[in-house]
Amino acid sequence: MPRPLAAADLVASARAGSPRALARLISAIESGHPGLPEVFAALPPGPGAAHVVGITGAPGAGKSTTTSALIGAWRARGLSVAVLAVDPSSPFTGGALLGDRIRMDEHAADPGVFIRSMAARGHLGGLAAATPQAIRLLAALAYDVILVETVGVGQSEVEIAGAADTTVVLLAPGMGDGIQAAKAGILEIADVFAVNKSDLPGSHRTVREIRQALNLTVRADGTGTRPAIVPISALDGTGIAELVAAIDAHRERAAGTGELAARRARRARAEIEALVLRALGERLAPQITTSAADVAAGRMDPHTAAHAIAEAILARRP
Amino acid sequence: MPRPLAAADLVASARAGSPRALARLISAIESGHPGLPEVFAALPPGPGAAHVVGITGAPGAGKSTTTSALIGAWRARGLSVAVLAVDPSSPFTGGALLGDRIRMDEHAADPGVFIRSMAARGHLGGLAAATPQAIRLLAALAYDVILVETVGVGQSEVEIAGAADTTVVLLAPGMGDGIQAAKAGILEIADVFAVNKSDLPGSHRTVREIRQALNLTVRADGTGTRPAIVPISALDGTGIAELVAAIDAHRERAAGTGELAARRARRARAEIEALVLRALGERLAPQITTSAADVAAGRMDPHTAAHAIAEAILARRP
Repeated sequence: MPRPLAAADLVASARAGSPRALARLISAIESGHPGLPEVFAALPPGPGAAHVVGITGAPGAGKSTTTSALIGAWRARGLSVAVLAVDPSSPFTGGALLGDRIRMDEHAADPGVFIRSMAARGHLGGLAAATPQAIRLLAALAYDVILVETVGVGQSEVEIAGAADTTVVLLAPGMGDGIQAAKAGILEIADVFAVNKSDLPGSHRTVREIRQALNLTVRADGTGTRPAIVPISALDGTGIAELVAAIDAHRERAAGTGELAARRARRARAEIEALVLRALGERLAPQITTSAADVAAGRMDPHTAAHAIAEAILARRP
Repeated sequence: MPRPLAAADLVASARAGSPRALARLISAIESGHPGLPEVFAALPPGPGAAHVVGITGAPGAGKSTTTSALIGAWRARGLSVAVLAVDPSSPFTGGALLGDRIRMDEHAADPGVFIRSMAARGHLGGLAAATPQAIRLLAALAYDVILVETVGVGQSEVEIAGAADTTVVLLAPGMGDGIQAAKAGILEIADVFAVNKSDLPGSHRTVREIRQALNLTVRADGTGTRPAIVPISALDGTGIAELVAAIDAHRERAAGTGELAARRARRARAEIEALVLRALGERLAPQITTSAADVAAGRMDPHTAAHAIAEAILARRP
């Protein structure tokens, strides 16, 4: 049995600004704690007023440095910022290596900044279920900006970053060039491209390649608006003001076209679907394990096994 | 309505060696065709005798070139080879950019080689559901080696590659160094590391960093056996014979310790779970969409919504 949650107290403490209470609530979300429904019932419903910004890109593109620079820019404007660094979990240990390290040190002592790395604890759809819940919690706690950082070329990670109000795709010369970006399927989800390490020689080429690749790509929002491409150098702050302006401009445009509302509805749908399927997956685990033994031994094929389990549930009549 | 499948005919043609019939069956798997249960019922059950090898690594590490070199080595030994190149799908277009391109040309005309890129068609857990089914199909068609290539630092992709009999993690100097590998959570799943572009100056450093990172990592199989680290240069074939030997040695060891059987049972379990949850997700889609509108409008919280949907199903009694 997990330790009980004292949901109402934790929510009250988190609303009063306790980072410990907030951290505890996010841990509960990661682990799918049975007390979560009580937590969410104690929070105001609805998406809140926060701007949810996703940032994704290949490992090594400089996401942590860029995140740190963005935090600085938002803080300078007096906005509170929460960062969720979504780590791919190891399917074997269930542990997040990133979570053990302290990152973005310069903002660690700022009470207007909350930084947390999140991992899926090995269950199917873990990140897909946990991330939108954590966003919902932070929005209810009135953070102005919620930045979701994903190590992002995977299907789950692309989906998570793509579910933000505004999605920033971060590239760097020589490693995340246009063709590789196309491979990773991230061209369609970018609202803003940031090309980091713009002092490096290959930087112009990367910008050109993205532009060319975008010419071949049908945009998801159907408006024909091309995403901005902003050269930055996150280490020394070059281009960060322009990046923040591009992020704000996207949000304003998306609010005007109805795209923002559509994304939030999609996010709610994905969140509910993940929660429903997780609950069903947990309750059906014994049946699935039994059938897996039959399938592995060659006594049954997996479709017959799955069909039997799904139909036994769906065919019931109240 | 999808075009009917003529399952028995297609299976017979595929068993007789028709690549068109096989391609059609894999398309059916990708799209979750309703005729699939009939296909699998027509195939011999059980995992077959194929060696399922996963290969994963960051974009740009040289997976396609390495795959091509491995195909050449296995073909030289008279083994038939099937390659599944798993692309991350775009959550917006549902299309695989990779799928449009012809890769690994030199093997395209060889009847002992089947190459296919696979994409998840936008549905939750799509790759998780489709890949093991495609593996099962290819194994039933008596391919000797099934190579599953994933663009791999994402949660889904790592899980897919990690579910192989033997998992190869491909790194390249300067882009997939030890620390980044740890970030991506792939240290624990590697049975064999291949360090590509071993002619580049940073190659020794990459090998050293992996070795150091492995010293800090608890291995999943609990045997204390360290994965081999093989420097290769896929373009000119350097180290490919050693890589094949390391892959074979791993399989032999895994068969001896029972690890191979355990992995196959896990794969069957994941396959059944994905099929069950997809079936349930499809049947529950209308309820989920209705609830999402309530949640997005702030009339309900997502846990209450999900609980209501899951319990309405689970609480029924026959």
